[in-house]
Amino acid sequence: MNTPRVKEILSWYGSDNPGTLTNLARLLNHGKLGGTGRLVILPVDQGFEHGPARSFAVNPPGYDPRYHFELAIEAGCNAYAAPLGFIEAAARDFAGDLPLILKINNHDVLCDEKDPMPALTSGVRDALRLGCAAIGFTIYPGSSEWAKMYGQLRETSELAKQNGLAVVVWSYPRGSALSKQGETAMDVCGYAAHIAAELGAHIIKVKLPTAHLEQEAARKVYEKEKVPISTLAERVQHVVQCTFNGRRIVIFSGGPTNNDEAVYEEVTAIRKGGGFGSIIGRNSFQRKKDQALRFLGKIISIYGN
Amino acid sequence: MNTPRVKEILSWYGSDNPGTLTNLARLLNHGKLGGTGRLVILPVDQGFEHGPARSFAVNPPGYDPRYHFELAIEAGCNAYAAPLGFIEAAARDFAGDLPLILKINNHDVLCDEKDPMPALTSGVRDALRLGCAAIGFTIYPGSSEWAKMYGQLRETSELAKQNGLAVVVWSYPRGSALSKQGETAMDVCGYAAHIAAELGAHIIKVKLPTAHLEQEAARKVYEKEKVPISTLAERVQHVVQCTFNGRRIVIFSGGPTNNDEAVYEEVTAIRKGGGFGSIIGRNSFQRKKDQALRFLGKIISIYGN
Amino acid sequence: MNTPRVKEILSWYGSDNPGTLTNLARLLNHGKLGGTGRLVILPVDQGFEHGPARSFAVNPPGYDPRYHFELAIEAGCNAYAAPLGFIEAAARDFAGDLPLILKINNHDVLCDEKDPMPALTSGVRDALRLGCAAIGFTIYPGSSEWAKMYGQLRETSELAKQNGLAVVVWSYPRGSALSKQGETAMDVCGYAAHIAAELGAHIIKVKLPTAHLEQEAARKVYEKEKVPISTLAERVQHVVQCTFNGRRIVIFSGGPTNNDEAVYEEVTAIRKGGGFGSIIGRNSFQRKKDQALRFLGKIISIYGN
Amino acid sequence: MNTPRVKEILSWYGSDNPGTLTNLARLLNHGKLGGTGRLVILPVDQGFEHGPARSFAVNPPGYDPRYHFELAIEAGCNAYAAPLGFIEAAARDFAGDLPLILKINNHDVLCDEKDPMPALTSGVRDALRLGCAAIGFTIYPGSSEWAKMYGQLRETSELAKQNGLAVVVWSYPRGSALSKQGETAMDVCGYAAHIAAELGAHIIKVKLPTAHLEQEAARKVYEKEKVPISTLAERVQHVVQCTFNGRRIVIFSGGPTNNDEAVYEEVTAIRKGGGFGSIIGRNSFQRKKDQALRFLGKIISIYGN
Amino acid sequence: MNTPRVKEILSWYGSDNPGTLTNLARLLNHGKLGGTGRLVILPVDQGFEHGPARSFAVNPPGYDPRYHFELAIEAGCNAYAAPLGFIEAAARDFAGDLPLILKINNHDVLCDEKDPMPALTSGVRDALRLGCAAIGFTIYPGSSEWAKMYGQLRETSELAKQNGLAVVVWSYPRGSALSKQGETAMDVCGYAAHIAAELGAHIIKVKLPTAHLEQEAARKVYEKEKVPISTLAERVQHVVQCTFNGRRIVIFSGGPTNNDEAVYEEVTAIRKGGGFGSIIGRNSFQRKKDQALRFLGKIISIYGN
Repeated sequence: MNTPRVKEILSWYGSDNPGTLTNLARLLNHGKLGGTGRLVILPVDQGFEHGPARSFAVNPPGYDPRYHFELAIEAGCNAYAAPLGFIEAAARDFAGDLPLILKINNHDVLCDEKDPMPALTSGVRDALRLGCAAIGFTIYPGSSEWAKMYGQLRETSELAKQNGLAVVVWSYPRGSALSKQGETAMDVCGYAAHIAAELGAHIIKVKLPTAHLEQEAARKVYEKEKVPISTLAERVQHVVQCTFNGRRIVIFSGGPTNNDEAVYEEVTAIRKGGGFGSIIGRNSFQRKKDQALRFLGKIISIYGN
Repeated sequence: MNTPRVKEILSWYGSDNPGTLTNLARLLNHGKLGGTGRLVILPVDQGFEHGPARSFAVNPPGYDPRYHFELAIEAGCNAYAAPLGFIEAAARDFAGDLPLILKINNHDVLCDEKDPMPALTSGVRDALRLGCAAIGFTIYPGSSEWAKMYGQLRETSELAKQNGLAVVVWSYPRGSALSKQGETAMDVCGYAAHIAAELGAHIIKVKLPTAHLEQEAARKVYEKEKVPISTLAERVQHVVQCTFNGRRIVIFSGGPTNNDEAVYEEVTAIRKGGGFGSIIGRNSFQRKKDQALRFLGKIISIYGN
Repeated sequence: MNTPRVKEILSWYGSDNPGTLTNLARLLNHGKLGGTGRLVILPVDQGFEHGPARSFAVNPPGYDPRYHFELAIEAGCNAYAAPLGFIEAAARDFAGDLPLILKINNHDVLCDEKDPMPALTSGVRDALRLGCAAIGFTIYPGSSEWAKMYGQLRETSELAKQNGLAVVVWSYPRGSALSKQGETAMDVCGYAAHIAAELGAHIIKVKLPTAHLEQEAARKVYEKEKVPISTLAERVQHVVQCTFNGRRIVIFSGGPTNNDEAVYEEVTAIRKGGGFGSIIGRNSFQRKKDQALRFLGKIISIYGN
Repeated sequence: MNTPRVKEILSWYGSDNPGTLTNLARLLNHGKLGGTGRLVILPVDQGFEHGPARSFAVNPPGYDPRYHFELAIEAGCNAYAAPLGFIEAAARDFAGDLPLILKINNHDVLCDEKDPMPALTSGVRDALRLGCAAIGFTIYPGSSEWAKMYGQLRETSELAKQNGLAVVVWSYPRGSALSKQGETAMDVCGYAAHIAAELGAHIIKVKLPTAHLEQEAARKVYEKEKVPISTLAERVQHVVQCTFNGRRIVIFSGGPTNNDEAVYEEVTAIRKGGGFGSIIGRNSFQRKKDQALRFLGKIISIYGN
Repeated sequence: MNTPRVKEILSWYGSDNPGTLTNLARLLNHGKLGGTGRLVILPVDQGFEHGPARSFAVNPPGYDPRYHFELAIEAGCNAYAAPLGFIEAAARDFAGDLPLILKINNHDVLCDEKDPMPALTSGVRDALRLGCAAIGFTIYPGSSEWAKMYGQLRETSELAKQNGLAVVVWSYPRGSALSKQGETAMDVCGYAAHIAAELGAHIIKVKLPTAHLEQEAARKVYEKEKVPISTLAERVQHVVQCTFNGRRIVIFSGGPTNNDEAVYEEVTAIRKGGGFGSIIGRNSFQRKKDQALRFLGKIISIYGN
């Protein structure tokens, strides 16, 4: 039976059908954080996004798609997210063992554009036949291709919701209109999170924001209204505010940090700021499995306290 | 039962099915202005269009999607308009409490083009499953992307009309072919309103025009025919004329004005010029709720007199 | 019962179904010229194409969509053509009173390109639900967007013919590949008319051609074969020849001429050259109604003699 | 009953359904060359492609669509090919009198691009309702738009084959990547013919090649392997070889040649080289009918011997 | 009955339906290598990709589509792959004689772009009606058109899998973002193979990689992690690793090498590195048939040992 906290979270999604709520509940109830309303998700799309050797050479068992299922299960993650091939290659072996998120669009770096536009690489029907609980979709707010991406997300998520799937949106600001620093600026990150929420995402994934403010019109407001954004916890809290004042699940990635203590501090700040959890890829699978389990175990224990 | 005025307005829409008339009647009969043929609508898409902090930091309860439903209901507005996420997040809680307009395309300012082209962010099937009375669609006449937008509106509104929904068109001239001043010029505004009417809109929303005339060929006609456009009421009257001589509902937004008295004067001019009402976003939700209720109450009372 | 002339004209359309023939017959049998095989059609899309004030300020009753239905009916025109909004706004009031042509694509001048591409603004299903006899479609041969337009016409007219509608094509050469003078050149106009016929149009509308020859390869042939094109009647006759040697209905617009006598002379030339009639917009609705009725009456009487 | 030669030809199309074989047999069995395995086809799309006066002014009866049906029938051609309008205008009058090929894409010269892309102007459903035996489709290998054209051909010919129609492909190399001379170069022509065959064409139409070799990589092979291409008959034979070693029907056009004896020599060479026939437009309809009948009669008699 | 090795290979495809497994088994069980888990496939799309004379002049029987079926059958290949025309022209004659792979997209060199984008030239329904076991699809990672290609592959392979076909992906890095040398660089080749696997390919075909490293970010990892790539066998092994650690079938082409001994050494290295086989076109059909049979026999015997 759902815990009061899970019931509360599900109550925010009053426009979704019981099928989608069931899949949201699967995500919230699985793993060591099941029932707490917190999530730690293992995503493995770096093979596609950065190349296989850059992703797995440091820990070669990661070349095998089964490795990541096992890692997510053993660590007690809430879910595992990956592109079509990595899911197809092991979904039957681990059917029912943990909730899956099919990452349905992807981008590689063999042709790396200033204004990125991902390719659709799988779809809702694939997610259904593979037993997934959700689809995952990346948007790049700030790219000149933004409208095409939002339109694809709209079409796909309408179909997903009709079929009782949950929709997880990776919202990563990028593009020629933004400075490099602006990609993780507080105003831009909050805006990107809000857009994902407005587009109907059930779960939103953003990068941890810095205190930088990118857009002049936004900077004026932050300063005038004295929006507190000096600590990481405050910035997380502001992102939570930007996603319907806490009524949407928003989770965070930490980027390529390699210092474990720094990650734990980030996680502590996410927890303190009211964030719902973490999605941790490279830091998990780019080390030996026993170390990864310890690392994920520590993160989960921070959230679980 | 419909008032004579509402019956008269509905009689202008002789090509629509009873389903659409029913939804138009819902919009006309709800709230404090119900039955008068006037409308005051609360739109909240600024989170998407300008960013969440720029929209809600000044009055933080506005981050919560429920706030705006409550504001619109308590103020006695005719309807509430918002993008998918903001509607989905509270539609069940307020089901039947007031007519909803689902804003199905949107534009953000993370990549702000000279010739804007909004993204489709939801659709007719969403409006139906969420219990909305109408869809809302923005066109930017003057943008080089105009033909694509009109074509999308055509496809969407055909479907909306088949399904008994009303169609509200935001017609905002913008693009590299227009000067900044030209965006609110009298000739351009009247033209944009007429285009929306020709495209089959039931309700048309434009900005209040200035006395500026942008296009040379138009200027000659205004001067030769001595079209009266020196007062705001005259300009409103001309917009009403441009929308089938008063046989289409046309409402006005006032832009970012912050002086309440100025807004009341504008509303008085709209009323005097035969405009059907106002759509007031930022001026409503960017202040404390009690002040907003007083402010909207005053506007409604001007129209209701 | 159809007159022998109407029977003869219908016999040219042997590949069309009885539904389309019925609608062609409606167009040919309505109004004062009914049964003669000649047509005078009132088109009112200038509000969309040039703006409302430029179209209607000189005769303000024209802002009201009902005005044009009344004008076309009282003048005894064969049909009335307009975009979606203008038809929707009065089709129920005048249902069955005269044949309607729904103009399903349009172009405005807020963003006026060198190579125009109109927007689809309504469609075959709209024409059917509104009781129209035909759809109207503009192509701009010579525009770099030509192939897209022809393709849209092909798709739409296939659907129209399946559903028993007639197809009227406005064929207006324009685009960066043509000189301004070339837009009404004899060779270009004859070519544009032929293209419309090859694309399957039942009724073709072109501008009256001048004696100018635009394309070098064509000029050589006109001169070598001594094609007679010095008088307007000869040029009309050549356009008729270019549309399947007289086996397609081709009608003419006169452009912005304001001198009535000049228009009567043009009409006399059209009649003498074997043209099937006129489509007269601005000259009709940009004057007081009693004057317009006299003006149209005179034109109709020239054709009717 | 099919002759042994027709049976042999049909045996090459083992992947087609009996419907398509029936229509191929109709093309092979009609007219004076019926049963010989040779074809002479009358195509009349020059009105669309070059303009009506350039096409028909020299022999004005050609403006009438019925003229070409009569010419093809009286001359004993195997088939008549034309765009939608020209077929629609007479298909009922001549229903069953000769096999028709509906030319479903076309290009005009009012906007003549370096990299041509034709417009779709009709389709398979038109061909079926008009009683045609085949569709005709032009590709321009070498144009930067090549992939779009091949894709359109693929979609259309899949539908045609499902519905029992034959597919005739005009393969005309053109585009900014080719020199003018290269458009009829031996290597380019053979390549273009092969591409059409690989795309699934039943009948392929190319221009007669010259001995010029356009592409460096090809020139080396022709020279090293001593491919005989010095006479026209050898070049025809090589084109036949390039279309599955003679297991596809390939026919030739002669271009704008006006010297009849030269045409007869070309036809003799086509016959000697194993070509399957000719498609002769301008040389047929751009002269008086009795002369055209004599001219076509002579060509047919060369093939028939 | 399937050998243990074939059973093992099929077990990697747990997300596919029995129809697709059946067709994979057909590919693995046919020919002299049937049951070994190794494949030698004959592909003949060079006529389309390079032109017919460049492909077949050196061995003219190759112009005939039946030749290649016979060659593949007599040599004991596992399968034969070709575009639509070459399959259609002989599929009935050899129905059931060997598994066919329909190559559904193609590229020619009459217009050779820096960033290639192939045309769709056939589809899943063609593959089904022609009795094929699989579709073949080329992607060019690194081309600016990459996202469009991946999207087309996604749509096509979803349909193929639904219909029980196998999906073979040719993954050839090319495009303006890559150096010529980079097209076969180790990092790029491994990345391209991984992308194909992530896109859901059952069988992946890549070129043999060199020891060159193209992308700086990748080079650092290869060097830091000391990934062994100095011998060809090591590089093959790394490609196998990049395709789900050996749980996807990956085969290799050798390019235009003409020295037979060099090819045998390559094949030996592929076998040693754990590659699943070879796809050998030009080296097979560009020599007399008896020599080709000896050549293919030698290769097959190396794999079979």
